[in-house]
Amino acid sequence: MHRTHTCGELTLTDLGKTVVLSGWVQKSRDLGGMTFIDVRDRYGITQLVFDAADDDALRSKARELGREYVIKVTGQVIERESKNPKLATGDIELKVSSLEILNPAKLPPFTIEDDTDGGDDLRMKYRYLDLRRSPVRNNLILRHKLAQETRKYLDGQDFLEVETPVLIKSTPEGARDFVVPSRMNPGEFYALPQSPQTFKQLLMVSGFDRYFQIVKCFRDEDLRADRQPEFTQIDCEMAFVEQEDILRVFEGLIKHLFKAVKGIDLGDIPRMPYEEAMRLYGSDKPDLRFGMPFVELNDTLKGVGFPVFDQAELVVGIKAEGCATYTRKQLDALTDFVKRPQIGASGLVYLRYNEDGTLKSSVDKFYTPLQLEQWAAAFDAKPGDLLLVMAGQTDKVRKQLGELRLEMGSQLGLRNKGRYTPLWVVDFPLLEWDEESGRYHAMHHPFTSPKPEDISLLDSQPGNVRANAYDLVINGTEVGGGSIRIHDSQLQSLMFKHLGFSAEEAQKQFGFLLDAFTYGAPPHGGIAFGFDRLAAIFAELDSIRDVIAFPKNNSGRDVMIDSPSVISDEQLTELAITTKRP
Amino acid sequence: MHRTHTCGELTLTDLGKTVVLSGWVQKSRDLGGMTFIDVRDRYGITQLVFDAADDDALRSKARELGREYVIKVTGQVIERESKNPKLATGDIELKVSSLEILNPAKLPPFTIEDDTDGGDDLRMKYRYLDLRRSPVRNNLILRHKLAQETRKYLDGQDFLEVETPVLIKSTPEGARDFVVPSRMNPGEFYALPQSPQTFKQLLMVSGFDRYFQIVKCFRDEDLRADRQPEFTQIDCEMAFVEQEDILRVFEGLIKHLFKAVKGIDLGDIPRMPYEEAMRLYGSDKPDLRFGMPFVELNDTLKGVGFPVFDQAELVVGIKAEGCATYTRKQLDALTDFVKRPQIGASGLVYLRYNEDGTLKSSVDKFYTPLQLEQWAAAFDAKPGDLLLVMAGQTDKVRKQLGELRLEMGSQLGLRNKGRYTPLWVVDFPLLEWDEESGRYHAMHHPFTSPKPEDISLLDSQPGNVRANAYDLVINGTEVGGGSIRIHDSQLQSLMFKHLGFSAEEAQKQFGFLLDAFTYGAPPHGGIAFGFDRLAAIFAELDSIRDVIAFPKNNSGRDVMIDSPSVISDEQLTELAITTKRP
Repeated sequence: MHRTHTCGELTLTDLGKTVVLSGWVQKSRDLGGMTFIDVRDRYGITQLVFDAADDDALRSKARELGREYVIKVTGQVIERESKNPKLATGDIELKVSSLEILNPAKLPPFTIEDDTDGGDDLRMKYRYLDLRRSPVRNNLILRHKLAQETRKYLDGQDFLEVETPVLIKSTPEGARDFVVPSRMNPGEFYALPQSPQTFKQLLMVSGFDRYFQIVKCFRDEDLRADRQPEFTQIDCEMAFVEQEDILRVFEGLIKHLFKAVKGIDLGDIPRMPYEEAMRLYGSDKPDLRFGMPFVELNDTLKGVGFPVFDQAELVVGIKAEGCATYTRKQLDALTDFVKRPQIGASGLVYLRYNEDGTLKSSVDKFYTPLQLEQWAAAFDAKPGDLLLVMAGQTDKVRKQLGELRLEMGSQLGLRNKGRYTPLWVVDFPLLEWDEESGRYHAMHHPFTSPKPEDISLLDSQPGNVRANAYDLVINGTEVGGGSIRIHDSQLQSLMFKHLGFSAEEAQKQFGFLLDAFTYGAPPHGGIAFGFDRLAAIFAELDSIRDVIAFPKNNSGRDVMIDSPSVISDEQLTELAITTKRP
Repeated sequence: MHRTHTCGELTLTDLGKTVVLSGWVQKSRDLGGMTFIDVRDRYGITQLVFDAADDDALRSKARELGREYVIKVTGQVIERESKNPKLATGDIELKVSSLEILNPAKLPPFTIEDDTDGGDDLRMKYRYLDLRRSPVRNNLILRHKLAQETRKYLDGQDFLEVETPVLIKSTPEGARDFVVPSRMNPGEFYALPQSPQTFKQLLMVSGFDRYFQIVKCFRDEDLRADRQPEFTQIDCEMAFVEQEDILRVFEGLIKHLFKAVKGIDLGDIPRMPYEEAMRLYGSDKPDLRFGMPFVELNDTLKGVGFPVFDQAELVVGIKAEGCATYTRKQLDALTDFVKRPQIGASGLVYLRYNEDGTLKSSVDKFYTPLQLEQWAAAFDAKPGDLLLVMAGQTDKVRKQLGELRLEMGSQLGLRNKGRYTPLWVVDFPLLEWDEESGRYHAMHHPFTSPKPEDISLLDSQPGNVRANAYDLVINGTEVGGGSIRIHDSQLQSLMFKHLGFSAEEAQKQFGFLLDAFTYGAPPHGGIAFGFDRLAAIFAELDSIRDVIAFPKNNSGRDVMIDSPSVISDEQLTELAITTKRP
């Protein structure tokens, strides 16, 4: 037997017991004739003591243990003289009577501590060592709990977890597929699923009613900041439901997860129409940990001769409370921020409401003192506030101001990761205009159902038709989204027409699902949550990488196992493909 | 709201309630002025009644409903005149007051009944309709329960579910990999995992201690009878354990599953050394639902002048109780059975112990009556028994007789699917001789640990070295297997030497894991269960296909979605590969 207890469980109640522990040498120090060693496992750290007065040879052997050696010790639990209240086992130590080295260890390339000296690249290459560090380990433990609690809740709600295939068929819509050459069917390929969308809809046609799956999905996209080529979804679908049923069930899931995993009572999740989210926060995923809603100023600031505003479709601003003290340098930095290419604004106008009641703007020469007062009044501003105003084409300026709002929220410390403000964004537009192709595209996917009351607008104002589509947003991050699907074939044909598909094209691309729908499809809808993203939010982390055991880098490469890699000529021949050597 | 209740829950306690149901039209019949319709959902069937005397128009509408139409009805729960005790809802029916057709349905290509008229091919093509049938649906519900209970048990034992990558690296060992060309790294490929073996061992090096994952794995093999290119494993690994710890924990899992999912108390699982399994049953996965152990007959039947036996390495037989009545035709059929190319025996010898006490064998001319009596005595045979004997090279004849034993078990009705006899087969050989390459191969994998007491035999009798490897067998099917791994680098080097790897080859092929092991690898071991196979056994089915929602056929093809398929030239160009068109 390699252990009787873990390194995280011995306390004063175990005093006098003879126990066996196994684990890794965390650190070692000598003090007089004694050597103290912290031994670590997944569950915690226990202090070992080797006393030369008891056994000089044993103590000498202990002194030679290096960091990360794997050891097994037998000893007696004794009370510690200087207790360590930070450690669960801090009241005791183990007086060791025998020591076995289970495995020596080379010196690790970085320190295995909560704060390590290892850089990103090194830690990714030796990910198996990085995973020994408590913060990284705790992220994966949290992820495990989230998955367990998700399954517990959904099982309790009569959902069935059904595994859908990983080797499926490539479809031209959406992001790029990863493909898999078929040896048994030369010249043909499987594709890895971007989501199990088709299969979950088929399961509804099959009568499975309430389906879920925690499932790997794949997208061969250029990896921006925080994307992974393989990622995990909580994928769900329900039949015989309307939007309200879905929001209720999955609001229940999110509340359960926060309660069970973080002990947080989330309360009811508010809802906001897409239009309002864009108008007040310039984003379809507003961060509501702070207010700072947009104030529209066309009536207040246009038409008095300031050309930038006069020519703009929308003049709109935010109020940064207590920021009237911002220096010129700080204000210039904000202007630089909105002018960055990723944001692309042409400039930023401010109005300072000084503590002494005076008003000072960057466009004083265009506005009278009275007009400045009206400007401040439009924001309901108080002394000490800073008003930041931008102007331009409505959609663009809203997005730009939305970025500035987030930046100000960060600067004012209003975006604490430990606080959670979830939000359902509802009533998404059904269609979005695609400049490139000069036609409307489905914002969600072509099976998303329009709101019945808006169907009559499809011909006259397609851009104004709202969908039965919804996103769950937490702290400004979209963590889930879904829709009610179209199950009526006539409505589906109408949709395809508006998406510019001919009947033949629709049949070619989606025929298989459309066929299935002719055999009795129930009303249905669903949602999918980004599980990596959700776990990162629960772990209060910015990057999903930290909640993935073995992530890939921005080139889609696993630097630990050095993958992807060249395969043998025999393999290529068997698969009937040729490729260039890198 | 599409329903207030499911079609499986209304009983006499609901009498008088007005309810809404939705579901599929299972069948319809007219009786006098009434139409009765069975409406079906995942939960059951409820009888609807439409009475022309109440509402002639509604009844007429009901008469026009086709099979598999999706309908929504409102009505009142009333007591049934002729109750149906086979149905949970058989005491009531719904007197319908309104009917909405949610979706019409084309006539399905086969009947959606427990026993369908659809052939295999048709049911696979329309798998989404086949999944509507109760037996198929129940298999997936069972699979869901197995997965849930597996996770519940392992979570309760402090196991963490950790997701390992799907896009990994191709390795030359083992079965063929499926590969995935990398667009971002032209000329390079990912591979899909045959198992997460490397990653779970790395997680042990990371200190994760108790890992599991219910995970898809992939093997590009020619698909024999009951293989799928993608399959699911319950993959597990533990650190600081010995074989005994693993057997105990996973015996607990299997017992939990049988109790929780089937209500069966399995009792303790017996263990049998590999050597005994081969000697008594001619198989490393003996079906112990029946006895019929081998009786070795070299001492009894050799050396009396029957050349076939005299020249054989082993003469061995089984006793089929009560089969002395087998006719000549039946015996010839058994001979034909063992002569089939898959079995390859040269013949079969029998001895009938007739009810009247006389003995009659197929080789009477070689044996005296006294010798026939000794023959019967060796089997402890009684009147009515049939003794079946084969001879040949030991390993081969054992396997051949093992097949005959299974056939006799089937003929005698001793292999009831609802009875479960689990067995741990232990002490597998570490190495097996490979005729083709003329060297020993690792029977399990090159990291499998030899039994410490057998290490000294590695040089002299490598074939006799036993491994710390084990299989779980249920009813003659291997459902899981694993081993204690080597964590000592010197022992690992010795193993590689015996497997014929040079140090360079070992480093090239396994270097990455060997490197990880130098940073402090704990003693560890694990097991993996074939989840599809386990589910099939629980469902009392022969084929894993029936417990997979969307299986592939024997050519690795999904005939429902028609995959694999040709991909576009644009895709091929982006991936920097070329292929021939099929």
